[in-house]
Amino acid sequence: MQYDFIFHNPTKIYFGENALDNLKEELKKYGKTVMLAYGKGAIKKIGLYDELMKIFKEANKTVIEFSGIMPNPTAAKVKEGIKLVRENNVDFILAVGGGSTMDCTKAVSMGSANNVDFWEHFYMNYNIPEKKIPFGTIVTMVGTGSEMNGGSVITNEDVKIKTGVVYPNMMPDFSILNPKYTYSLSKFQMVSGICDMMSHIMEQYFSQTDEDNVSDDLSEALMKNIIRNAYICVKNPQDYNARGNIMWDATLALNTLIACSKKGDWEVHNIEHQISAYYDVTHGMGLAAISPSYYRHIMDYGLSKFKRFAINVFNVNPENKTDKEIALEGIDKLEEFFKNIGATTKLRELNVTNAEELDKIAETCYFSQGAYKVLNADDIKTIFRNAI
Amino acid sequence: MQYDFIFHNPTKIYFGENALDNLKEELKKYGKTVMLAYGKGAIKKIGLYDELMKIFKEANKTVIEFSGIMPNPTAAKVKEGIKLVRENNVDFILAVGGGSTMDCTKAVSMGSANNVDFWEHFYMNYNIPEKKIPFGTIVTMVGTGSEMNGGSVITNEDVKIKTGVVYPNMMPDFSILNPKYTYSLSKFQMVSGICDMMSHIMEQYFSQTDEDNVSDDLSEALMKNIIRNAYICVKNPQDYNARGNIMWDATLALNTLIACSKKGDWEVHNIEHQISAYYDVTHGMGLAAISPSYYRHIMDYGLSKFKRFAINVFNVNPENKTDKEIALEGIDKLEEFFKNIGATTKLRELNVTNAEELDKIAETCYFSQGAYKVLNADDIKTIFRNAI
Repeated sequence: MQYDFIFHNPTKIYFGENALDNLKEELKKYGKTVMLAYGKGAIKKIGLYDELMKIFKEANKTVIEFSGIMPNPTAAKVKEGIKLVRENNVDFILAVGGGSTMDCTKAVSMGSANNVDFWEHFYMNYNIPEKKIPFGTIVTMVGTGSEMNGGSVITNEDVKIKTGVVYPNMMPDFSILNPKYTYSLSKFQMVSGICDMMSHIMEQYFSQTDEDNVSDDLSEALMKNIIRNAYICVKNPQDYNARGNIMWDATLALNTLIACSKKGDWEVHNIEHQISAYYDVTHGMGLAAISPSYYRHIMDYGLSKFKRFAINVFNVNPENKTDKEIALEGIDKLEEFFKNIGATTKLRELNVTNAEELDKIAETCYFSQGAYKVLNADDIKTIFRNAI
Repeated sequence: MQYDFIFHNPTKIYFGENALDNLKEELKKYGKTVMLAYGKGAIKKIGLYDELMKIFKEANKTVIEFSGIMPNPTAAKVKEGIKLVRENNVDFILAVGGGSTMDCTKAVSMGSANNVDFWEHFYMNYNIPEKKIPFGTIVTMVGTGSEMNGGSVITNEDVKIKTGVVYPNMMPDFSILNPKYTYSLSKFQMVSGICDMMSHIMEQYFSQTDEDNVSDDLSEALMKNIIRNAYICVKNPQDYNARGNIMWDATLALNTLIACSKKGDWEVHNIEHQISAYYDVTHGMGLAAISPSYYRHIMDYGLSKFKRFAINVFNVNPENKTDKEIALEGIDKLEEFFKNIGATTKLRELNVTNAEELDKIAETCYFSQGAYKVLNADDIKTIFRNAI
């Protein structure tokens, strides 16, 4: 396969415990009315809400609040945001939260700036947004990488579809990343984010091209950094340096850097999206529960890469072992890592146990063309059976 | 040290053998008059000049030629370019070549857009350029990373100063990278570029902070990719994939990604700049000749990092060895790598042999505050003695 790609990521990253100091200067670039988008009030608990209100006041901004954005943000919530933007002539949106808030904000940005049905136009028919309401993000929950990419995942409850789109021109104008904002997350949320970022890397790493390429080497570096620092974070959630590493790993995992020259798989994400359209499953945990089963199922079709993964990422000793044994040991180590940090590695731990219902979900899954093995519904049924 | 940085790199990269197809679309964004900046005609030999003229014609552009940009571009040459831009009201500059052409173009861009003495204002007094003439690059010689950063190194012959500046807002608007354009480079030029990019990484890697950080892990991944692919390129200069890897490594080595949370050393570059202000030394070869001597001199002040380098980058087996032995073996392996790919690892190979003259040069060197050991002139004299 040809070494051939476009890389363009203009999002400005402010990283560190004083990163918020840059907000006032950034706000000067935009008009008077700012919409503050956030979730269910976690930003109030950590004092960030009050800090922001003070900055808005000093910057002489009118603030419109768009709150209550839920995990797996819904099309209905996006419509609520679009209405607010239009009614108030919002000039700029500041998304404060995790992937859900950021993804919802992107949908609101493109939906309100363009006179179309946002769901049909952008999420079903993949039209590139012509216009956007400018927006920035402040990250309080780490994992999705939404702070430095043009991706947005929205769930339409009416039709039971959770789907993601990626538009390069929907990258945030800037993002503020302060590891300390993540201290108050529950262990469940933190670990879920770590599983999400690991999955993002693996979905790119385990795909063509497998010729010697820079992206795969960077991916291994990021995975090793995540594994090392995840253990530290689980032990001491207030280790600033480890939280900082994990936060930056998450951003680089999905800012298109390690996608350069790679086709990308994304089948695990496809499958998880379908599960969580039916069940109330936390994204990262769903990924952790499916990944080992999925990778064991496709392992033979990318054996040399799984062998490389085992040796380079999980330090599996290859001596006196067949390629298959080495590869399998790598996936075992991945599952063990997920388990050790407290992730769910079986669907039953997420209260997903009904094999017949999973069979039906398997029929609704999209089959990735970038995977080592292009699946069919029967493959997914088998993967589900082994993941329960 | 605190995990604290700003990352912002908006340069759009078109990478691959068809990357030039994107030029016409890019040119639409700018006015009618384009200045084509290039060196001594290598772009004619590879047919690129004719291709560009065809594209300019199709895009209905008026072309001003600014040619003859030399290695270590001079302040006089920059002034010539500034004059051309002003006389012809140039709207956009396309730099086609290597680091010299790109760096010279940056100086011309800031110098012609702002009504100041470019050397005094930007290169001596570090004023951030308020305006710029927009510019893109097409890379034909790999190494400096200038295609995705705001750095520019200019030599002022009158005062015998070669100095570099870095202005974030002087990053190219876009860069076109086609590995095939580099096929016709001499082995000397190719190897010199490889030494340059290795040095760029080491200058960032061997500096504070040494706490677990993502940048150092990415640096190791890039160095290993360079070493592996350098050997392939030397054996078969037309290996597209290996040339592609080296090309992308060079860009990532100096696009500020691996600088995040790192102080940076840059003493080897400082020293080399002073040598080549006095001698006609090719930048990358000068770096290769100084690096081993420099790193042996400061090794004790960053021992654990040099040990890590030896093990992680050069696979030195640490068993039954002291930290110092391991670290030293890593630097020996670095020198061996330079030698194996055909780089000069001694100053005498570059016809720099006069110790007394080097003593004088040592007195003119800048002493980096980001180094493991902040040097003085005597240190540099010793480093020179060991590098001859």
